[in-house]
Amino acid sequence: MSITAPKGFRASGVTAGLKDSGGKDLALVVSDGPEYASATVFTANRCKANPVLWSQEVVKDGVVRAVVLNSGGANCYTGAEGFQTTHAVAEQVAQGLGIGAVDVVVCSTGLIGLKNPRDKLLAGVDEAVGALAADGGDDAAHAIMTTDSVSKQVVVEASGWSIGGMAKGAGMLAPQLATMLVVITTDAKVDAATADRALRAATRVSFDRLDSDGCMSTNDTVTVLANGASGITPTEQDFTEALTRVCTDLAMQLLADAEGADHEIAITVLNAASEDEAVQVGRSVARSNLFKAAVFGKDPNWGRVLASIGTTDAAFDPADLDVAMNGVWVCRGSEPSEDPAKVDLTAREVNVTIDLKAGDARATVWTNDLTHAYVHENSAYSS
Amino acid sequence: MSITAPKGFRASGVTAGLKDSGGKDLALVVSDGPEYASATVFTANRCKANPVLWSQEVVKDGVVRAVVLNSGGANCYTGAEGFQTTHAVAEQVAQGLGIGAVDVVVCSTGLIGLKNPRDKLLAGVDEAVGALAADGGDDAAHAIMTTDSVSKQVVVEASGWSIGGMAKGAGMLAPQLATMLVVITTDAKVDAATADRALRAATRVSFDRLDSDGCMSTNDTVTVLANGASGITPTEQDFTEALTRVCTDLAMQLLADAEGADHEIAITVLNAASEDEAVQVGRSVARSNLFKAAVFGKDPNWGRVLASIGTTDAAFDPADLDVAMNGVWVCRGSEPSEDPAKVDLTAREVNVTIDLKAGDARATVWTNDLTHAYVHENSAYSS
Repeated sequence: MSITAPKGFRASGVTAGLKDSGGKDLALVVSDGPEYASATVFTANRCKANPVLWSQEVVKDGVVRAVVLNSGGANCYTGAEGFQTTHAVAEQVAQGLGIGAVDVVVCSTGLIGLKNPRDKLLAGVDEAVGALAADGGDDAAHAIMTTDSVSKQVVVEASGWSIGGMAKGAGMLAPQLATMLVVITTDAKVDAATADRALRAATRVSFDRLDSDGCMSTNDTVTVLANGASGITPTEQDFTEALTRVCTDLAMQLLADAEGADHEIAITVLNAASEDEAVQVGRSVARSNLFKAAVFGKDPNWGRVLASIGTTDAAFDPADLDVAMNGVWVCRGSEPSEDPAKVDLTAREVNVTIDLKAGDARATVWTNDLTHAYVHENSAYSS
Repeated sequence: MSITAPKGFRASGVTAGLKDSGGKDLALVVSDGPEYASATVFTANRCKANPVLWSQEVVKDGVVRAVVLNSGGANCYTGAEGFQTTHAVAEQVAQGLGIGAVDVVVCSTGLIGLKNPRDKLLAGVDEAVGALAADGGDDAAHAIMTTDSVSKQVVVEASGWSIGGMAKGAGMLAPQLATMLVVITTDAKVDAATADRALRAATRVSFDRLDSDGCMSTNDTVTVLANGASGITPTEQDFTEALTRVCTDLAMQLLADAEGADHEIAITVLNAASEDEAVQVGRSVARSNLFKAAVFGKDPNWGRVLASIGTTDAAFDPADLDVAMNGVWVCRGSEPSEDPAKVDLTAREVNVTIDLKAGDARATVWTNDLTHAYVHENSAYSS
C-alpha cells in the first residue's frame, strides 16, 4: 500500500513505453485533499535535471496536488526542449485531473543526456490518470524502479493518522540526497511550514547521511504531501519523529539495494567536537575506495580508516584515535590493539565505530563496500 | 642510473628481509657533497607515519645528507615503539656514514599498523652502507617497490648539471601527494630556500594533481638533495623547469602503473575563473566512481562528468558547459552535441576537456579508471 495507505490518496503505475524492458515506467500520485500542503527537498547538485528545475518553481507556494514520475529517462542535460517536455507532462496531468499545472511536481530518472519521447509520456499520463486507484501505491512504487532490484515502500501508523512512502534508487547515492526519488504521503493535518521543517530534520539524519558511492545525482527529489484527511493535527515533534522513521527506513532500503554491494556499512563517529565534524569524519571513511574494497575482501583494515580520518580538519589528536569494527577495538591510541582476526566480516552488516575523543557529538554515516559487481554494473550500464 | 646520474651521489638497494617475497626492500641514497642543501614535501594527511614525524624535524634546517627508505612496512600507527625504530634506523645510517642522524631522512612504505622488525632493519642498513655505489641508483629504485610492477626512474640533463629521480607508488594516489616516496638528486648548486621554492612549484602541478583513487597516504615524502658537485648554479627558473620535468615524468610513470588501471585519464579544465577552481572541477571528475567505471567500460558518459562538475562551487553556468572526450565535443551548452559513438576509448590514454566559460585559467588533473583489477588488488592486499 505504502503511499496509498493514508486516507485520501490515489496512485497508479503504468507502462508508457520508455523502458526497453517493457516494464512499468510512469507513476502518478494524487492527493484528494481536503488540504494540499507539501514540502520538498531537491538535489544539491548545481547541474540539475529539467524536472527539478520545473518542480522547484511548483513547490514554492507549499501547495502540491499531484506528483508524476517516470523512469526510463532522466530528462537531464536535454536543454530547452527537455524543459518543455517536463512542462507538457505537468500540463497533461493537470488537464486530466482538472487542477493547475503549477501544483504538479514532475520527477524523472534513468539515462542522462537523452531526450524523453514526449508523445509516449503524454499518452502514459492519460493512462495513469485513468488507472488511479486507492490501492495503487504498489503499482506506483514499481513504476519508478530503474536498476532497483526491489521496490522500496514503508508505512508508519500513528494515532488516527499515518505516513506512507515510496523510494527509488540503487546507486549514485551521496550526500545532500542520494539518487533517488521519494514520495511521502500523510493524512495528518500539517501545514506547509511545519512539513518543511519536519522534512529537513528527517532528511538531515537519513538520506543526507547515505553515501553509497560518493556520487551526487542530478534528479533527486523528496516530496511530502499532507492532505489532512484524518482530521488530526499531530504535534510537530510527533510528526517529525514519524517522518524521520519513514525516511530512515527508506534510506536503509536504498542502502541494502545499492548496486552490486556485498555489505552495508554503518560508520559511527563518537565524541566529536560537533555533529558536523562527526559527519565529516564518517563521510571521509565512507568515501575511501581503499577501505570499501577492503570490506569487500573481508579485511578489517583499520589503517585505511585512520588514513581517511587524517584527511579531515575535524578536531582530534592523530596519536589518540580508537577504532572498532563489529565491536572489536582493533585500534586504540592510534596503535594496534585487539587482534583484527577477531573481526568477522562475513555478514552483510558492518559496524565501524570511531572515537575522536574531542567532544560529545556523534553521527552515523552509511555506505556500501566497493565490489566487482559495482564496477561491472556501472561500466556496463549508462546512467 | 637515475638518482646516481648526477655527480657526487651513491646509492644501494639490499634485502633486509622485510618483504615476504624476499626481494630487495631497503634503499640508501647518500650525498657526498660538497653541499647538502635539500627541500622536502610531505603528505598533507594529519595521521602521519612515524618516518614522516621524524623526517619533518630532520629537514627543518635545509640540510640532508642521506635518505634511507624501506618497503615491506609503513611503520604507521605503531606508536612510540615505531618512532624509536625510525630513530634507530637514522642513527644506524649516521654511524655507518660518519654523519649526524639529524641529517638522515627516513621513509617507509608497505602495510599500515604493523611494527617493522628493528633488528632486520638495522642489519639491512649496515649492508646498504657497505653496498653504496656510484651506479647504485637502479638497485635503490627497485628496493622501494611495493605493488609497483616496474621501477620509476628519470634523468633530466641540463648544461653541465643534471637531476635524477626515483619514485615508488601504485595506488592511494591522491592530492597533496600520492602514496609515494620520491628521492630527487641534483649536482646543481642550489641553496635550500631555492630548492624549496622550486620543489613546491614543481609538485603543485605534478604530484599534487595526480588523483588515482582519491585516497591520501600517510607516508608520502618527496625529498630533493642538491650537492653542488657540478659547480654550476642554474637560474631559479631553469632549475624549476627541469625539476618540474622530473616530477611530471615520475608522476606520469606512477599514473601508468596505478593498481589495476586500464586507462590513464587526463582531465583538462579550460576557461575557469581561477586555477584553483580548475583543479577543483578536475578533481571532482577524477573522484567520480561512476565516471571512472564508465571509462573502464569504454562508455563516453559525459552526463557523469556534468554531474560531478555540479557538485563543486566553481564559477560556471550549469546550462552552458562544454565537454569533449578524446577531442569529440559530446556536450555543448550542457546538451548532447557530437555523437558519443565517435569517441574511441580503446587506447589507455583518455583526454577529457571541460570548458567552464568563466575565465581564462586552466589546469589538468590525472586519474585512472575504476576496474575489476583495482577492486581485486585492494580487497586482497592489505596496505
